[in-house]
Amino acid sequence: MNRFLLALALVLFSVAGFTQRTAFSPKEDSLFIRKIADEILVNGKAYAQLTVLTKTIGARLSGSLAYCRAEIWGQQALRDAGAGKIYLQPCMVPHWVRGGVDSATLTTLENGNQLKMRSLNILSLGNSLGTGPSGIHAQVMMVRSFEELRKRSAEAKGKIVFYNYPFDARPVETFNVYRDAVRYRVQGAAEAARYGAIAMLMRSVTNASDNNPHTGMMIYNDSFPKIPASALGLRDADLLAGTLEGSGRPAQMSVYIRTLAQMLPDTIAHNVIGEIRGSLYPDQVITVGGHLDSWDPAEGAQDDGAGCVQSIEVLRVLNALGYKPRHSIRVVLFANEENGLRGAKKYADEIKAKNEKVLFALESDAGGFTPRCFSFTLRPDRLARLRPWIRLLQPYGIYEFTGNGGGADVAPLADQGATVGELVPDSQRYFDYHHSRSDILENVSKRELELGAVNMAALIYLVDKYGF
Amino acid sequence: MNRFLLALALVLFSVAGFTQRTAFSPKEDSLFIRKIADEILVNGKAYAQLTVLTKTIGARLSGSLAYCRAEIWGQQALRDAGAGKIYLQPCMVPHWVRGGVDSATLTTLENGNQLKMRSLNILSLGNSLGTGPSGIHAQVMMVRSFEELRKRSAEAKGKIVFYNYPFDARPVETFNVYRDAVRYRVQGAAEAARYGAIAMLMRSVTNASDNNPHTGMMIYNDSFPKIPASALGLRDADLLAGTLEGSGRPAQMSVYIRTLAQMLPDTIAHNVIGEIRGSLYPDQVITVGGHLDSWDPAEGAQDDGAGCVQSIEVLRVLNALGYKPRHSIRVVLFANEENGLRGAKKYADEIKAKNEKVLFALESDAGGFTPRCFSFTLRPDRLARLRPWIRLLQPYGIYEFTGNGGGADVAPLADQGATVGELVPDSQRYFDYHHSRSDILENVSKRELELGAVNMAALIYLVDKYGF
Repeated sequence: MNRFLLALALVLFSVAGFTQRTAFSPKEDSLFIRKIADEILVNGKAYAQLTVLTKTIGARLSGSLAYCRAEIWGQQALRDAGAGKIYLQPCMVPHWVRGGVDSATLTTLENGNQLKMRSLNILSLGNSLGTGPSGIHAQVMMVRSFEELRKRSAEAKGKIVFYNYPFDARPVETFNVYRDAVRYRVQGAAEAARYGAIAMLMRSVTNASDNNPHTGMMIYNDSFPKIPASALGLRDADLLAGTLEGSGRPAQMSVYIRTLAQMLPDTIAHNVIGEIRGSLYPDQVITVGGHLDSWDPAEGAQDDGAGCVQSIEVLRVLNALGYKPRHSIRVVLFANEENGLRGAKKYADEIKAKNEKVLFALESDAGGFTPRCFSFTLRPDRLARLRPWIRLLQPYGIYEFTGNGGGADVAPLADQGATVGELVPDSQRYFDYHHSRSDILENVSKRELELGAVNMAALIYLVDKYGF
Repeated sequence: MNRFLLALALVLFSVAGFTQRTAFSPKEDSLFIRKIADEILVNGKAYAQLTVLTKTIGARLSGSLAYCRAEIWGQQALRDAGAGKIYLQPCMVPHWVRGGVDSATLTTLENGNQLKMRSLNILSLGNSLGTGPSGIHAQVMMVRSFEELRKRSAEAKGKIVFYNYPFDARPVETFNVYRDAVRYRVQGAAEAARYGAIAMLMRSVTNASDNNPHTGMMIYNDSFPKIPASALGLRDADLLAGTLEGSGRPAQMSVYIRTLAQMLPDTIAHNVIGEIRGSLYPDQVITVGGHLDSWDPAEGAQDDGAGCVQSIEVLRVLNALGYKPRHSIRVVLFANEENGLRGAKKYADEIKAKNEKVLFALESDAGGFTPRCFSFTLRPDRLARLRPWIRLLQPYGIYEFTGNGGGADVAPLADQGATVGELVPDSQRYFDYHHSRSDILENVSKRELELGAVNMAALIYLVDKYGF
């Protein structure tokens, strides 16, 4: 070969190397995805694995014994699924403990001098300090919003500020409502403390028909005192609001709150990771995961036991069908999503430190509900190129791809430039259970959970085969 | 006006009368449908009405006292919703009664002469005769299918035939699986009796993770004896199958069945109807409905309390928004869908007798789950013309129209040539609850129920405005 031809060949080869794409073969893909679905719907292990995680381990807050047991469970589940390499990735996590049973009492002195006491259903917010064993007893100042608090800030001193901010029923996508209302949970205590309040109560971030309070992470502002913060069940929030506002307004009313939460020193936890090595591009990684930790009132079945077992099922089904992925497929059960995101940060840091290429990272952390959509961090033009895939997934429930980004655990990867995405299941029931005592296995549908896994596995297969 | 011009005007007028269509104004429609959604999601009455129907009335089998109470409830609910005219349409219905608690026992004589008795969780099928108080005790012949029964028909005489036909997990649309498997429930007893069997047991038509048996209608063949027929919960079906087939096959095994069901003489029941009179075409009727009767093991919450309260909500929301329908909108709570369809037949007969024109009849009887689709009895070309409506409904969950027809209660109208359709919600959880003791309010999501009603009301509005 003369030098010209050699040079030409090299140019052609390298161009081919960059632009070569596997030809789209929807018929073959449709058949393989049907196999994925049959295997998961008939022989699926996700529900059985979730049963173990929820019923023998249960709630698994960062730093707890149960979280440690969940790490062992995760390794075993990944082994059962056929992961070739299983390892732990250590990281330091916040260690918040509830410390006991939260309680609150509403005391009213009716006009006829009749003293009435009613217990209120509360849960301390996560990361909040407790009142301590003697509790806090004070008058309540109800506000509808931060704006109202600011306007009436002179009244807050020495009081319990009660945010009665409603969960808007109108938007169909409940996560949009959550993102708005959750500000009161995250910043509410700090804002109340700014004006001298001594405790914070809030209407739970939910529209559930029951009275279960919903916990979740809050953040203090170091410039102000760290006051105890708790969420009220909706019926009790309405009771409290009605007592404050109603026509039978009592001569005096006060609330007693007793919570025992503490923030202990950071402790160790691990991301639990299992992978199948890629046959062509072992150094390019497709990540799929959910978070292994949960809040403490229930079993973390939907949040996010579902995402964990679905992610493990993706690996299991590809393995069971003898599929040899071109890229390495790595299941990550993230530590500490709920009150710190330390696992996600650790994972992204390690990716960066090892200079690994992440082809795609898919998260499932919106519940094991019936699948409807995948969301990506892709610009519209690149997203449009994926449209032919939707027809392949539509028989299994997915009918839409959006560019609305990924979830919290893959966000640090997106910040590093990786393409990330998340499963978007139907969102109607999620906030009924989220962070409350009703997040239990009984509120997970086996079929809905499995169909989520079917679509996740199908998407991973398509990404592995075609890239973006 | 001369005669020529008069004739021309008449021709033009009559042509206009036949072909004039309201111009499609998606912006206006989108705003109005948003109003429908806001009203239902914020002030909706469907869930509260369903709570009364399920918790104060409960199961309401045709001919029962509870069905009578449900008729009263229905009239009141329609009155509350603003129906201008409320009336009952009488029809004679089958009057089947369970008569007591169904029970069954599996007895095995193990090789070591050890007698073991285990109770089996059964429910008599609807319309089946019972064994009577002394019960039936016989050996069991298990078959997987009618084909196997025919091949081994010589073995059936004097036995209990047990159909262990599985509910196929693979198809995503569970109603397709039901339509196949339900043959064993409907015809299984008659086919077993043909070959001399003295009772029939069957694997319940479900894939639920629990052990609840699922009842439902069966039909005898008058040429053969009327043998008692019951359904087994899935775990007990597996237990029975395992005992018959397993390695630890006992020396002897038999099953004792005791059911007390009876078919009493036909009795009276009523369709409960409420309507708003059309402002332009009062003689043209848009029907929307579900069935008021239910099976007896639970509360008939999904089947079909949901469809009833959604239909009533359609009328309520249009009324609450001050919408004046062009056509009469008539909510029908059908009698006796479950074991006779007599209400549906009566309603269609009355339509025919009064020569009323049915512009459209919409049914909701697939549960109050998150909405996905509407199905119509429309040919593809006419269906294609409705496609622009899908974009109006997509924000509320509907993303597809199909030509797969309507449900059971509107089928007699379709037979008369009317266009009918049904709400097709997500089908993954329906057969977990269907006709079993888990069909209770707690398994209905308020939001999912409401979104079904939103889409039904929006569709009725579009049909009323534009026709087909």
